[in-house]
Amino acid sequence: MNVTLSATLAANEEIERRRRAGERVLHLAFGEAGLPVHPALRERLIAASEHNGYGPVAGASALREAAAGYWHRRGLPTDPELVVCGPGSKALLYGLLLAIGGDIVLPMPSWVSYAAQADLVGARPLFVPAPPGEGGVPDPEHVVSAVLRARSRGREVRSLLVTLPDNPSGTLASASTVRRIVEVARELDLTIISDEIYRDLVHDPGATGFLSPADLAPERTVITSGLSKSLAIGGWRIGVSRLPSVGLRDRLLAVASEIWSSPAAPVQQAAAYAFTEPAELVRRIDESRRLHGTVARAVHKRFVLAGARVAAPQGGFYLYPHFAGLDFATSADLATHLLDEHGVGVLAGHVFGDDPRALRARVATSLLYGETTEQRLAALGAPDPLELPWISASLDHLSEALTGLYAMRRAPLRHGRVRLAPASVTG
Amino acid sequence: MNVTLSATLAANEEIERRRRAGERVLHLAFGEAGLPVHPALRERLIAASEHNGYGPVAGASALREAAAGYWHRRGLPTDPELVVCGPGSKALLYGLLLAIGGDIVLPMPSWVSYAAQADLVGARPLFVPAPPGEGGVPDPEHVVSAVLRARSRGREVRSLLVTLPDNPSGTLASASTVRRIVEVARELDLTIISDEIYRDLVHDPGATGFLSPADLAPERTVITSGLSKSLAIGGWRIGVSRLPSVGLRDRLLAVASEIWSSPAAPVQQAAAYAFTEPAELVRRIDESRRLHGTVARAVHKRFVLAGARVAAPQGGFYLYPHFAGLDFATSADLATHLLDEHGVGVLAGHVFGDDPRALRARVATSLLYGETTEQRLAALGAPDPLELPWISASLDHLSEALTGLYAMRRAPLRHGRVRLAPASVTG
Repeated sequence: MNVTLSATLAANEEIERRRRAGERVLHLAFGEAGLPVHPALRERLIAASEHNGYGPVAGASALREAAAGYWHRRGLPTDPELVVCGPGSKALLYGLLLAIGGDIVLPMPSWVSYAAQADLVGARPLFVPAPPGEGGVPDPEHVVSAVLRARSRGREVRSLLVTLPDNPSGTLASASTVRRIVEVARELDLTIISDEIYRDLVHDPGATGFLSPADLAPERTVITSGLSKSLAIGGWRIGVSRLPSVGLRDRLLAVASEIWSSPAAPVQQAAAYAFTEPAELVRRIDESRRLHGTVARAVHKRFVLAGARVAAPQGGFYLYPHFAGLDFATSADLATHLLDEHGVGVLAGHVFGDDPRALRARVATSLLYGETTEQRLAALGAPDPLELPWISASLDHLSEALTGLYAMRRAPLRHGRVRLAPASVTG
Repeated sequence: MNVTLSATLAANEEIERRRRAGERVLHLAFGEAGLPVHPALRERLIAASEHNGYGPVAGASALREAAAGYWHRRGLPTDPELVVCGPGSKALLYGLLLAIGGDIVLPMPSWVSYAAQADLVGARPLFVPAPPGEGGVPDPEHVVSAVLRARSRGREVRSLLVTLPDNPSGTLASASTVRRIVEVARELDLTIISDEIYRDLVHDPGATGFLSPADLAPERTVITSGLSKSLAIGGWRIGVSRLPSVGLRDRLLAVASEIWSSPAAPVQQAAAYAFTEPAELVRRIDESRRLHGTVARAVHKRFVLAGARVAAPQGGFYLYPHFAGLDFATSADLATHLLDEHGVGVLAGHVFGDDPRALRARVATSLLYGETTEQRLAALGAPDPLELPWISASLDHLSEALTGLYAMRRAPLRHGRVRLAPASVTG
């Protein structure tokens, strides 16, 4: 068993430690939404503070019904009996790995915890690179051969995961890629786990609709989602899943009942309200989406100007630049250098399953909105958030760091550059 | 993998279903504390409702420090850095199984989820009966031979679990048994997991202190605890653990970071307050302990009068009667009969790892305090809760059921008695 702290959480703790020690660090390493909780959600939590019973393992019926309604409004009629809630979609994803069993196909790169969870349950991830220029989906053209080869070696591959839109790349796979991966999953009889936690944060002005594998193959697709990203309540720990069958639901409930029992009861009631999508929360998500998109595009521009290759962001709050041509042995070395020499915290690409020698890193843009609730609310409401002094200062810090980084190409350091990143920071 | 819903949670859901359908069911099958949440805890939750960040995997520092203080006041100096919090002690126990690895020695009988969790992580529980007349500790005299035998067959046995006081038996192992099991754990180099979630609910008037394995072998003992039982906030999902070493802590954190991240942030703040043990909450726990003891002893008397063999309850809110001499093939048959024919829900002993043919069952007494917050508060404050009409009616229901049950010995049913219990109810 691989036992290192989740790379994203570890990076966050390390950066927070440095900040407490007085270091000036631009925190681009943590996928927290970086926004305050909406007062309406706090009110619902408060109103439900007398809820102290365990309640059903699947979640309170109000929450399951609200989540079913959420999917129904997105063209996916959903039986509340096939909704299972958990303390975060992370816990649900872990439970699904146990409930489905076997090995899993993952896109490369993909969110750090998928492979780590597979390792914990004794499964092996089968990394398949995303199609050129896309992210979050293993390239359908290569999945068939990878799975058949693994099966011919006796591995039992039972599932395939997609992230729509993607973490770490911040891109949304095209409808044609989704169609093709669904065909492949059918052909290979794989259950599809569709992690759609960033679905409501597609901010690309050119985006044309959202296609879930569940739209095409409801019989074999599990959707996981939550409110950690869209409504910034990661710390409240609430996730929801939409199961394709009673059989898989019952297996997931069996696992859930032995690991976490149920999400915190007052949180469930607040989440039930959120999933009914009242106007005040829809507005908050609209504002958040706009802010995420504006800042992600501004950061994207800085990377492009500095000389990195990086796909334009389409959803969530991530970018995945490629620092081709720089003189580092690994992405971990690059990340360590950025943190130690330029005070910029990012996550090295290798923790997402990428080739350690490929100089890629994930950049999370959501902690740029401010340090205080006041700053963050101002960012949410600003006509141009980029003009807010703390955001523009952060962007300047980033530009300066990238200029310094790329200056290395002209005046390489003589020594000390290829230090190994401590495992707790980037891996 | 064994995939049935946790027996206690399943029993609760089944009984709730029957009640909604209008059946009159005495609910003695679920280990929920059956009391309202104290207003001071609600206030703390409310005050912390703006906490929406993930926070440290180990738990907020205020919570870890408070938990350390809680143990310190019990004679166990504790470094807050060696405290790990989770969404319930159940999740922590699961994480510990993964973090420690190997097979585990469990007392027989013991709480349903220990063995089920072992199964989920691919470990095998080594059931060792508790010493005669005791519960919660595998008989030290038999542990050595059981472990040596298992090891000689190639099994890697790495840990041993005790429950102090015990669920299902409601008894507290003697100090001499605790001393002996610690010696055995040393001899065999086993990590001891001491589940002390009922520690503050020892209600036996004759109890003389509490001895934790951590008092004797701090270098190899993990304590798990929480507030689900003492302060009745099971539905808030908060557990704490006290680790013996940085090494095991780091392994547990690695697991925690990939499965649940952290407990709900507002709940952590309320729990931090609780573990400082302010007077108002100490008083609430005192009242709860008195109520649990009074009702458990009254229920014990009913079973003794009816003819069951049952140890006197010492802590928590459980009894584990033995219905020797009744004509059922299995404890599951007995439990089904009690539910179907007498409207009394209990959990068959076999789900606790007991011999299926031994007619034992766990009786949880904590859902007798009432259906409403008003009734439950009245029970907490009553000089003699047994005189409250709803409690005395429940006790009468129980006496009637037991009379009916034991009448079978004189007039056995001709058929239909040995029906199999549906798995979802008792197994």
